[in-house]
Amino acid sequence: MKLSSFGDKYTGQSGIVDLMADLGEALHTRPDMISMGGGNPARIMEVETIYKNHLINLLKEDDGAYNILGKYQSPQGDELLLKQLAALLRDEYGWPITDKNVAISNGGQSAFYVLANLFAGRFSDGSMKQIQFPLVPEYLGYTDAGLEANFFTSTRPTIEMLGDHVFKYRVDFENMKVTDSTAAFCVSRPTNPTGNVLTDDEIRQLDAIAAEHDIPLIIDGAYGTPFPDIIFDEVSPHWSKNTILLLSMSKLGLPGVRTGFIVASEEIIQAYANANTIQNLACGTVGPAIASKLFLNREVLEISKNIIMPYYKERAFSTMDLFIQAMADLPVYIHKPEGAIFLWLWFKDLPVSSAKLYEILKEAGVLIIPGHDSFAGLKADWQHAHECIRISYAQDAGQVNKGVEIIAREVRKLYENN
Amino acid sequence: MKLSSFGDKYTGQSGIVDLMADLGEALHTRPDMISMGGGNPARIMEVETIYKNHLINLLKEDDGAYNILGKYQSPQGDELLLKQLAALLRDEYGWPITDKNVAISNGGQSAFYVLANLFAGRFSDGSMKQIQFPLVPEYLGYTDAGLEANFFTSTRPTIEMLGDHVFKYRVDFENMKVTDSTAAFCVSRPTNPTGNVLTDDEIRQLDAIAAEHDIPLIIDGAYGTPFPDIIFDEVSPHWSKNTILLLSMSKLGLPGVRTGFIVASEEIIQAYANANTIQNLACGTVGPAIASKLFLNREVLEISKNIIMPYYKERAFSTMDLFIQAMADLPVYIHKPEGAIFLWLWFKDLPVSSAKLYEILKEAGVLIIPGHDSFAGLKADWQHAHECIRISYAQDAGQVNKGVEIIAREVRKLYENN
Repeated sequence: MKLSSFGDKYTGQSGIVDLMADLGEALHTRPDMISMGGGNPARIMEVETIYKNHLINLLKEDDGAYNILGKYQSPQGDELLLKQLAALLRDEYGWPITDKNVAISNGGQSAFYVLANLFAGRFSDGSMKQIQFPLVPEYLGYTDAGLEANFFTSTRPTIEMLGDHVFKYRVDFENMKVTDSTAAFCVSRPTNPTGNVLTDDEIRQLDAIAAEHDIPLIIDGAYGTPFPDIIFDEVSPHWSKNTILLLSMSKLGLPGVRTGFIVASEEIIQAYANANTIQNLACGTVGPAIASKLFLNREVLEISKNIIMPYYKERAFSTMDLFIQAMADLPVYIHKPEGAIFLWLWFKDLPVSSAKLYEILKEAGVLIIPGHDSFAGLKADWQHAHECIRISYAQDAGQVNKGVEIIAREVRKLYENN
Repeated sequence: MKLSSFGDKYTGQSGIVDLMADLGEALHTRPDMISMGGGNPARIMEVETIYKNHLINLLKEDDGAYNILGKYQSPQGDELLLKQLAALLRDEYGWPITDKNVAISNGGQSAFYVLANLFAGRFSDGSMKQIQFPLVPEYLGYTDAGLEANFFTSTRPTIEMLGDHVFKYRVDFENMKVTDSTAAFCVSRPTNPTGNVLTDDEIRQLDAIAAEHDIPLIIDGAYGTPFPDIIFDEVSPHWSKNTILLLSMSKLGLPGVRTGFIVASEEIIQAYANANTIQNLACGTVGPAIASKLFLNREVLEISKNIIMPYYKERAFSTMDLFIQAMADLPVYIHKPEGAIFLWLWFKDLPVSSAKLYEILKEAGVLIIPGHDSFAGLKADWQHAHECIRISYAQDAGQVNKGVEIIAREVRKLYENN
């Protein structure tokens, strides 16, 4: 099989693909495995029932099944839905948005793939540009999205200690360099994998630097405002003409419908819609149809604020407390849970790497995500990157608590046998 | 906005994107417009009711809503569904297929984008390869799928006259050249836009040549066997280890769920699944869930054979008869309707180009697809390519009949005023 460079990329080594395959294999062969690795949202029955009833009612409407199943959507997305989302963003945040600033995607990953490659990679004059992560760790799923090698650059964050066992990453503006080959900034807010939420001040500074260099600031809001709004403290939502905001329905509890949204300048929306026509013809219609019902009367905001966010907030702090209780005497630090559905654990001076710890924990019956693949774009290796893991607390609480016990036990052994 | 080469592609001129935008605009501003341009399947109430009931029942099952909406699917697709499809293909056709030979996609377009770029484009040694269409006209939607320029090659077909007003394209094997830079063959069977169905003999020859050159034969079966099986005469389904077969649920009447399937060698499926992880994370779950119900007891084959195919066959021949009656005295030829949902009309020596005819017909209230963009990869311009149009007969019969009248009237004027 002779493959193009594009093809080589997908048959060669990829940390992410290998990890996903290994996670899948482990769950397949050991059904008793405690899964704290994946990004599946929690099953929250109260919201599931709401979505289910909307979909059943939609199907029972006159022409309902036809509208949901039987038609192609326009590549940018159904105009009525785009208007609804634009109105929601205008009303809630005062952003100067119309339906021309919004497009639909087959989920956030698909939107990021298109957008990242619009701005970075090979240019017609032969030059190359990179997407810059102002703060790593960043989302593992970005790592292979570039059509060219060396697609990302990043700088180490500074680490602020907030208590005996809690820390927070901060953007290191002093050491961050923007050059002619910087194509765009990209941040997830809240951040997957750390649960960090960039402060309003950090976002303002990043946008100002981006504007000054005439490059976009991509904010991946898959866990952010206005929905699912899994943010535990008050922060300001952000959009500017310079900002590309990615939204998703997945963490509302609807990953199966593969529906995301892009909020950006008209010309970026147009370029995205063209690319979407050519690559996908159109997006699915089921997710957008449910979205339209949820946008009516702003139900989506109620659900997010009153059910989804409180659910994860409770789970985040309970799980953190368990970890700290179990390892209070060890040099273990947890990133302050500010949002998203993960805890990020730092085992300082752990005698084994996070890659090895992943194997040890798998053997012990718990799946986690080792941290070292989440530091894309760093020029030099960083010991800290091999001392961290991501765990999800979105699954069944009993299972998660058992997982915490096992992790604490295994990590303790490693420290004590050293 | 500074864009990469990938970005330039989507903001530059694209025949397809411009055409789609123009079609959308025309429908938007003139709601009375007769739409014979798009690729929407017909609304067939009998099958729509079947799909609707399946989906409602699925939602009412224990954990039904969770399974359909609340989970990510694995990147290759749910194992049970893959096994079902593999069993269906083994049972029906005797192909040596397992679940490792099957993957799910977000529709056929998305699958083609990935697969075409796996095999063609830039290679690590700097060389370039192309996808070859053994017969044009081919599907318009392929035209811009390549990440590199000059992504396709093709040869003119031979034209076989089958009657006073009917013809059929044939693969011109004598003039077809395969070189070191041929990456793969690609055919749609039935062919969008012509309704041609490559003969068993043509397919066998193509597969033999492909095998001899160690390149894959991509068969896009979006309209073909085993579903939706919109083929009017008996032909043999084809698969070999060398073949990549693309299937889709869209023309069953389910374009909204964006679900397609790829049937190929294990290594191609693996490469595709890796690319799908990185580009899309996962495919939607609603389409696959409905598919699973339709694969049970082979309902999908019954629906295709007894409802969908007969519906389009009747519409194809009725519409062709109307055209021939209205233009019997003109040098107008129709490609023999052998499958798919389109008629392909050839206006020999028409004094205006198909591009101009598109404008004239739009003005007169009918949208069609001009043919000249469907000849990707031809080295030299070909007058024939500017004398053809594609019309869909999938919409309401009354509207289609009115459209035929208008087309016949306007074309007659053009011939007679010459």
